[in-house]
Amino acid sequence: MSIAEKKIAVVLAGCGVFDGSEIHEATCALLNIAAKGAKYQCFAPNAEQASVINHLTHTEESGQKRNMLEEAARIARGNIKDLKEFNPDQFDAVIFPGGQGAAKNLCNFAVKGADCDVNEDVQKALEAAYAKQLPIGAICIAPALIARVLGKHGITVTIGNDAATAAQIEKTGAHHHNCEVDGAYVDREHKIVSTPAYMLATSIAEVNAGISHLVEEILKLCR
Amino acid sequence: MSIAEKKIAVVLAGCGVFDGSEIHEATCALLNIAAKGAKYQCFAPNAEQASVINHLTHTEESGQKRNMLEEAARIARGNIKDLKEFNPDQFDAVIFPGGQGAAKNLCNFAVKGADCDVNEDVQKALEAAYAKQLPIGAICIAPALIARVLGKHGITVTIGNDAATAAQIEKTGAHHHNCEVDGAYVDREHKIVSTPAYMLATSIAEVNAGISHLVEEILKLCR
Repeated sequence: MSIAEKKIAVVLAGCGVFDGSEIHEATCALLNIAAKGAKYQCFAPNAEQASVINHLTHTEESGQKRNMLEEAARIARGNIKDLKEFNPDQFDAVIFPGGQGAAKNLCNFAVKGADCDVNEDVQKALEAAYAKQLPIGAICIAPALIARVLGKHGITVTIGNDAATAAQIEKTGAHHHNCEVDGAYVDREHKIVSTPAYMLATSIAEVNAGISHLVEEILKLCR
Repeated sequence: MSIAEKKIAVVLAGCGVFDGSEIHEATCALLNIAAKGAKYQCFAPNAEQASVINHLTHTEESGQKRNMLEEAARIARGNIKDLKEFNPDQFDAVIFPGGQGAAKNLCNFAVKGADCDVNEDVQKALEAAYAKQLPIGAICIAPALIARVLGKHGITVTIGNDAATAAQIEKTGAHHHNCEVDGAYVDREHKIVSTPAYMLATSIAEVNAGISHLVEEILKLCR
């Protein structure tokens, strides 16, 4: 299969680091997929965000409601689908960018840690992708979500070097691997690739370097 | 002056192609500045957006209000300043990403064309930057805004190849230059660099190619 035929699902969780998908990570994922010659389709759950955070003042917008799919459509320029429509037979890989939405909207790991609840559509999509042996990429805090769903299989993921988060990940049955900011760790047995991005990065250039490696490894793992 | 000392102001207008700054263009601008070794500081006017568009359904959100600075803070990860605080003495260049916010929030070119009104803080920042001979970069539709403010000096900018928009730009006194999607046109006399981005691009990889050239030329023009 040529790279031009490879199609990657990118699962978003809103639009903004503090209540949705981290914009630089999501955009760098799309950029690297396109720049390496493959195709992407964005998805998000059609559900309310757990919170709406004013990114200027870092305070919660009391009473405001935003929908993950509608906000993620900003990153996708309107070209996005409800995650309910995800069919693993139509894709060669799946990538989850980070941002607090991955740990507050797609699941509530940020609140409940290893025992967190997972959005039903996310759970289904992840289990279906894993069952089809699609490579799964996870950026920044998103590996915590992957660990919650697939940790039982003994997968290995990165999170940067945060000991408390790493400990929660180990509790799911997954293993944590320390990883440099510009690297990506490949769990070849389970076809999981992860990179720390803004868990460690101090600049968008570092984020892009790690995500470039992640996308490269994901494309190599596509059958 | 080494590249590491060069500091570029990036002026945003919200967060999302249909009512704010185009996210891919803004992020690619930040990425290329950082990857080439320079620094950036984001700014936006502290004022209400002209509209709030649901990016999934492409319909206006009746009654909803969003603030440009607060929404642009999502792209800037919270590290953003009110455009009123922009001081051209502290910067080596200024870049305006595109998105409809550049033509609906920073000015109302989208409604009124060549005779449009310009946000007061934007007008002041642009005139101050030009007076200090700072290089000015403009992406996608943002050259229309630059033309409205600086067209009287006979500057030359790109817009892609849209004849109607080009005609409005010529009415400001500016000249329009057709430009390939992956290129950037340099008006050396006035130190204005522009690139068509999503006025022509069919992928984020094309957008990034043009913006990479734009940032490279902007850095060369910095004194």
